[in-house]
Amino acid sequence: MRKMYRFLQIALIAFPFLAMKQDKPLRVIFFGDSITQAGVGPNGYITKAGELLKAEGKSSQFELMGAGIGGNKVYDLYLRMEEDVLAKKPDVVFIYVGINDVWHKASSGTGTDPDKYVKFYEAIIKKLKAQNIRTILCTPTVIGEKTDNSNQQDGDLNQYSKLIRDIAARNNLQLLDLRVAFMDYLKANNPDNKEKGVLTTDRVHLTDGGNAFLAQKMVEALLTK
Amino acid sequence: MRKMYRFLQIALIAFPFLAMKQDKPLRVIFFGDSITQAGVGPNGYITKAGELLKAEGKSSQFELMGAGIGGNKVYDLYLRMEEDVLAKKPDVVFIYVGINDVWHKASSGTGTDPDKYVKFYEAIIKKLKAQNIRTILCTPTVIGEKTDNSNQQDGDLNQYSKLIRDIAARNNLQLLDLRVAFMDYLKANNPDNKEKGVLTTDRVHLTDGGNAFLAQKMVEALLTK
Amino acid sequence: MRKMYRFLQIALIAFPFLAMKQDKPLRVIFFGDSITQAGVGPNGYITKAGELLKAEGKSSQFELMGAGIGGNKVYDLYLRMEEDVLAKKPDVVFIYVGINDVWHKASSGTGTDPDKYVKFYEAIIKKLKAQNIRTILCTPTVIGEKTDNSNQQDGDLNQYSKLIRDIAARNNLQLLDLRVAFMDYLKANNPDNKEKGVLTTDRVHLTDGGNAFLAQKMVEALLTK
Amino acid sequence: MRKMYRFLQIALIAFPFLAMKQDKPLRVIFFGDSITQAGVGPNGYITKAGELLKAEGKSSQFELMGAGIGGNKVYDLYLRMEEDVLAKKPDVVFIYVGINDVWHKASSGTGTDPDKYVKFYEAIIKKLKAQNIRTILCTPTVIGEKTDNSNQQDGDLNQYSKLIRDIAARNNLQLLDLRVAFMDYLKANNPDNKEKGVLTTDRVHLTDGGNAFLAQKMVEALLTK
Repeated sequence: MRKMYRFLQIALIAFPFLAMKQDKPLRVIFFGDSITQAGVGPNGYITKAGELLKAEGKSSQFELMGAGIGGNKVYDLYLRMEEDVLAKKPDVVFIYVGINDVWHKASSGTGTDPDKYVKFYEAIIKKLKAQNIRTILCTPTVIGEKTDNSNQQDGDLNQYSKLIRDIAARNNLQLLDLRVAFMDYLKANNPDNKEKGVLTTDRVHLTDGGNAFLAQKMVEALLTK
Repeated sequence: MRKMYRFLQIALIAFPFLAMKQDKPLRVIFFGDSITQAGVGPNGYITKAGELLKAEGKSSQFELMGAGIGGNKVYDLYLRMEEDVLAKKPDVVFIYVGINDVWHKASSGTGTDPDKYVKFYEAIIKKLKAQNIRTILCTPTVIGEKTDNSNQQDGDLNQYSKLIRDIAARNNLQLLDLRVAFMDYLKANNPDNKEKGVLTTDRVHLTDGGNAFLAQKMVEALLTK
Repeated sequence: MRKMYRFLQIALIAFPFLAMKQDKPLRVIFFGDSITQAGVGPNGYITKAGELLKAEGKSSQFELMGAGIGGNKVYDLYLRMEEDVLAKKPDVVFIYVGINDVWHKASSGTGTDPDKYVKFYEAIIKKLKAQNIRTILCTPTVIGEKTDNSNQQDGDLNQYSKLIRDIAARNNLQLLDLRVAFMDYLKANNPDNKEKGVLTTDRVHLTDGGNAFLAQKMVEALLTK
Repeated sequence: MRKMYRFLQIALIAFPFLAMKQDKPLRVIFFGDSITQAGVGPNGYITKAGELLKAEGKSSQFELMGAGIGGNKVYDLYLRMEEDVLAKKPDVVFIYVGINDVWHKASSGTGTDPDKYVKFYEAIIKKLKAQNIRTILCTPTVIGEKTDNSNQQDGDLNQYSKLIRDIAARNNLQLLDLRVAFMDYLKANNPDNKEKGVLTTDRVHLTDGGNAFLAQKMVEALLTK
């Protein structure tokens, strides 16, 4: 009787474990712009996220892939999502886009209107939902690291972040509020109110520290249920 | 024998006529921006096109519909084409878009990059082709009526017109080169090189004369085979 | 002896007072853009400032004049300051400019770079100092009334406000921090985070309440020594 | 009698020549943007202009100086003209500015409105006239080398060139129409309608050939009376 119980106890623990061992790892795609394109480099945030998972003994559970292209705005993601995301049958997709939608207003006159941003964002989500893909929405990080809301695009970044929070709420999707995470980090770690050099090299693209910080946030969101 | 011949003669004329009588009129949708939105007004170009067809005794052959919304750019057309165009089962669609794609660069920082303009334009065409809808591509008209290429957006309007000509050629589609038509008209009828007041009231939107001229060009294109 | 001293003490206090009574009123010029152009209207802030001074029995001490032109940026003020300001021999000048320097970046591509903003601002100040004119520097108010730093131009308005604070400090000039005053007022009085309708009609130009609030701030600054 | 006449003839030719030999060379300043900043480099247009003058035996008559700073717009020239031009007591000044006034509209939202362009241009001219400095006005060259008016900024470059032609006419000043010269050259030498690579490396800054061509135009204008 006791042996029997023992056996059952082991089985109850072991079966899920075996099941997990037999499962393929979850395929996770990071879908975004140049920050994500650089994310698969030796010091990029996707590479570092893989290292974090390995350190936690979870590297066999996840397969991380980058799908970032420099200069991409929300409708660029929309235009290439069939080929670059859906065709790869991901289990999880992080959408991390918005910096160029805001930035290109000033740098080339081809930013994205807020209402169009929302429309294309929701069009992307609709296609991911149709495939039952777990989707995590990221607010845009920074264009300039000053912490007193005096970076030129701060107003717009705050506005588009709110739009994403609303989209997440409306669609009952997981939100990773990178905008808040970055600003909180900078308030603690940028005492001289510098516009670059802490998390970014050039106000936008990430330092090694920026990549490490982002990797940590991405992994936390991935492991959150 | 003579009677027989007479009968045949009548039949040859009558059959196509009967066939035509039985057909429903061809549904023609003008798909565009504020110029097209105004086109269905009392003096708008679509209304005037209908009058031209009536004067030629062809009003029963065509049903003209407007699908214009102010401020629309190419990707706005893309986003609403299912509902506003395809759902209405048109036989012919005129695509007349591009002014805001260029203009919004300066007026709100949210114009359309040339390569994205082409991508969405071709995405629209692809969906129309799939339904075997006859599609006529229009180059953008004017932002400013000066004839010496010194209107601020002339360079871009010329560039985007070339892109549309290329799209038409690549896709073997009918082209209505409104940019050329308008500039030719203005070279003959704007001797003082005014920036508005000939075909437009405000450099973009059409005067009664502008609507009449555009109506004529649209009808010519529609009747061209 | 003691009496004599007492007499002198009274005289020292009284003479300036008498002198002031005999003096002509101080000429005060408000130098700015469309908000200031509207300021001399029936409900404008300059008109209301005059009423406030009258209510305090000080209307004979000040002559208020508007020198605002719609659409003006800092270098427009520079270009017209000889004629519109210096020629009128003011005793006090309020400089209230910056909204268009920021706004025109998005609305016409012709905003002012921050470093050029500072250069022209200081060129204006230099000429006013050379005439010993009391100069009061105003930070720009708002483009949008949302209080969570999510109005499109908030980042830039905060940046240019900092530039003006620095100019005031460097030049030892009086600062009227309208940006702070407006945001504080809105945090208390815009609970729904509306983008317009509290102090502005259209995100920029002032409601009656906005004019009254601004008038009060201007008068406080004027009476501050 | 005949000898006497001969003598006079020689004298009439020789005296001005002697006078010229004794004069200091004319100081010529090229006042502009990055193209002019690069103009003093080993292959720059100012260096090459000096070589052309030398080849014609006229190098002792002219002293060529560059006063170009990258990114400069018309009001930058205005702000630094005392120090960089007037203080150097030039005899001749070429004003060659306008590309950034147009370009920065799209690249940073801080271009120059046409009416302000004219105002600052004329303010510069006024100061040069007050010193009796010979002034030569240059129209802006190119942003893109396509010859069919389809470079994005062609409309504006044509517009600002017209403004400069008008300024020259109004002020009775010498015009060097570089815009026309460059476009004529490109029509003959850019058969493939390339956007760069003929006179420019990057649509704006000059190739060696571009510098040589510009040097020739500058020298022709300088030697024109």
